[in-house]
Amino acid sequence: MLDHQTSILKKPQLTLDIGKVRRNISRIVDKLQRHGVFFRPHFKTHQCAAIGELFKDMGITAITVSSLDMAAYFAKHGWDDITLAVPVNPGQLQDIDLLARRIRLNVLVDSLEVATMLNNALNVKCPLWIKVDVGYGRVGIKWHDEQNVLELAKLVESSPQLEFCGLLTHSGHTYECRGKEQVIHRFDEGRRRMLKLKQMLLANGIRARISMGDTPSASLVEAFEGVDEMRPGNFVFYDLTQTQTGSCSETDIAVAIACPVIGKYEDDLKVVVYGGSVHFSKDSVNINGERLFGQLALPTTDGWKIIPLSDGKVVSCCQEVSKIKVSREVFEQIELAQTLYILPAHSCLAAEVYPRYLTTNGEVLERFRLFE
Amino acid sequence: MLDHQTSILKKPQLTLDIGKVRRNISRIVDKLQRHGVFFRPHFKTHQCAAIGELFKDMGITAITVSSLDMAAYFAKHGWDDITLAVPVNPGQLQDIDLLARRIRLNVLVDSLEVATMLNNALNVKCPLWIKVDVGYGRVGIKWHDEQNVLELAKLVESSPQLEFCGLLTHSGHTYECRGKEQVIHRFDEGRRRMLKLKQMLLANGIRARISMGDTPSASLVEAFEGVDEMRPGNFVFYDLTQTQTGSCSETDIAVAIACPVIGKYEDDLKVVVYGGSVHFSKDSVNINGERLFGQLALPTTDGWKIIPLSDGKVVSCCQEVSKIKVSREVFEQIELAQTLYILPAHSCLAAEVYPRYLTTNGEVLERFRLFE
Repeated sequence: MLDHQTSILKKPQLTLDIGKVRRNISRIVDKLQRHGVFFRPHFKTHQCAAIGELFKDMGITAITVSSLDMAAYFAKHGWDDITLAVPVNPGQLQDIDLLARRIRLNVLVDSLEVATMLNNALNVKCPLWIKVDVGYGRVGIKWHDEQNVLELAKLVESSPQLEFCGLLTHSGHTYECRGKEQVIHRFDEGRRRMLKLKQMLLANGIRARISMGDTPSASLVEAFEGVDEMRPGNFVFYDLTQTQTGSCSETDIAVAIACPVIGKYEDDLKVVVYGGSVHFSKDSVNINGERLFGQLALPTTDGWKIIPLSDGKVVSCCQEVSKIKVSREVFEQIELAQTLYILPAHSCLAAEVYPRYLTTNGEVLERFRLFE
Repeated sequence: MLDHQTSILKKPQLTLDIGKVRRNISRIVDKLQRHGVFFRPHFKTHQCAAIGELFKDMGITAITVSSLDMAAYFAKHGWDDITLAVPVNPGQLQDIDLLARRIRLNVLVDSLEVATMLNNALNVKCPLWIKVDVGYGRVGIKWHDEQNVLELAKLVESSPQLEFCGLLTHSGHTYECRGKEQVIHRFDEGRRRMLKLKQMLLANGIRARISMGDTPSASLVEAFEGVDEMRPGNFVFYDLTQTQTGSCSETDIAVAIACPVIGKYEDDLKVVVYGGSVHFSKDSVNINGERLFGQLALPTTDGWKIIPLSDGKVVSCCQEVSKIKVSREVFEQIELAQTLYILPAHSCLAAEVYPRYLTTNGEVLERFRLFE
């Protein structure tokens, strides 16, 4: 039982439903296994050694992270095959070398210049992927720039300290999709672009594996032909953004922020909680034309229960407090000082705020912290 | 000289120009003094004892904070007159009582119910303000609900443990204003609404002071008649949001996030830095129809220099990296691994991420941390 169900909750608390986490993990584990795709989950969403153990229990041996410090944290907790899924930061070459001596640290590059710097800095052979941009437009060599991909692959193949693994992409633009059909279409477009590059390399005598990312694709796609590896991360918790891509329902969301009620305003059917952008992050999601910072859920004896979005939505989020518009029925159930739960717009950033989780069965799970 | 100007910066670093901070503070100190308005700065933006000392040096004796923990932090650093500018959280009555025994802790209420709970919980007389909503629509009794204000004021006056100070509001909706004229108009509307309530109370034999908030008003307004106290906070650093209200120019912005360059993409005139939503927060500002997460500034020997927004704007911000669209001229000046500076969309939330500041002259200043 949650501490704040027996006593009054003083401050916002990141709360985790570990049963939902397990279910979310096993669903993707089973699916990717069925399709024969290697599963290298991204740990940037939970950033927690104890949650990592749940993955280990389901047979996962390799992971993805988004910073070198996060890689070092999980290496300390026994993971020895980690992909750092952000292009190599030339300012951290020595630190990469140090960690690559201890574990299999897979890195990403998208330029000849950085690949050369990396090769020169390393004292150990390091597995490397070429980062490809299949349309998201963030980092990576553009999928149609075959010449550049080939040149970089050749350089890597001829670099004594680099081991060429293949082509890696993150179709982050699936987050803009609404519904299964759009996600499948976008994933497939990216997959075909990756396969074309793979074949081009093969024609030049270079073998490459294909690694793809993203929670919407892992959740909704059923055709992974030619894809060797998937690296979704957010699925472990899901969030309101993912309900909009169609990847999950509200009942799959495994984290919520418990917040005490500090004000009720009957005229506006509005409830104000202690809990704001410093407790959830300022990320939001557009649902039916409205910018929302979260969805209300009501406490139960063992967690929270979902109510329709129209019964409780977080319509504004200041530094320390948030405003929830509720239906009259819900308004009348809510009391000052009671605990409410907020399902976050973006679970990665909401969880990022906190040093630890409180689970719905009372356990405390420590997280990696970016700044000590 | 900054550490990362002599060596390569490994990771994003919150950087503070203390000269700009001093100038921003003294400008508002001088102005409010000239107008005879008591200045009770909000410390939620900087949350730093050392920056607090700069205010003390300019004669400031009383402050505003946004959480009880923040109040306790500044009490520990010698502040003994603090307003907690969020309505009382009924879950923290005992903690309020404990702190109110040590310092003059001013609190806010907007309901009879919480005022009664507070009076019953206190072992010491506590100064109290009625929170009024003059149009922002977040918390507070609505300005036109005179009956409610009067009833609450009477209750407070008759409560042995409560000392009625007056009416307090935060015109947070000035943030939506574009330019001086709009800010002045909105502030004045709020001021007149507050004065009307004050007169209503006086007609009922109750004297009330008037406390108002917000950086746009403090920066742009020159007519404070009837206002006893101002509580702006963001002005200490300013940010891109405030350039849009007209409250400051880019050269006034006193914090920037130093980030290493990890990618250059000539086709798109795009630069990617290590530094994302976990380093800046995910807040953004709409400038000329574009959603921006920051503005690029270039390093100098003693800080950063402003360049036109059209030469460098942060157009997307993922968890760990951000994408900056630059002009060709700027693109050609930028090198891989060099340090760039990002002026944040919202300085309160960007600074919130970090446990400490590095000043442009090499000092390290510790901040209050929400979670230990």
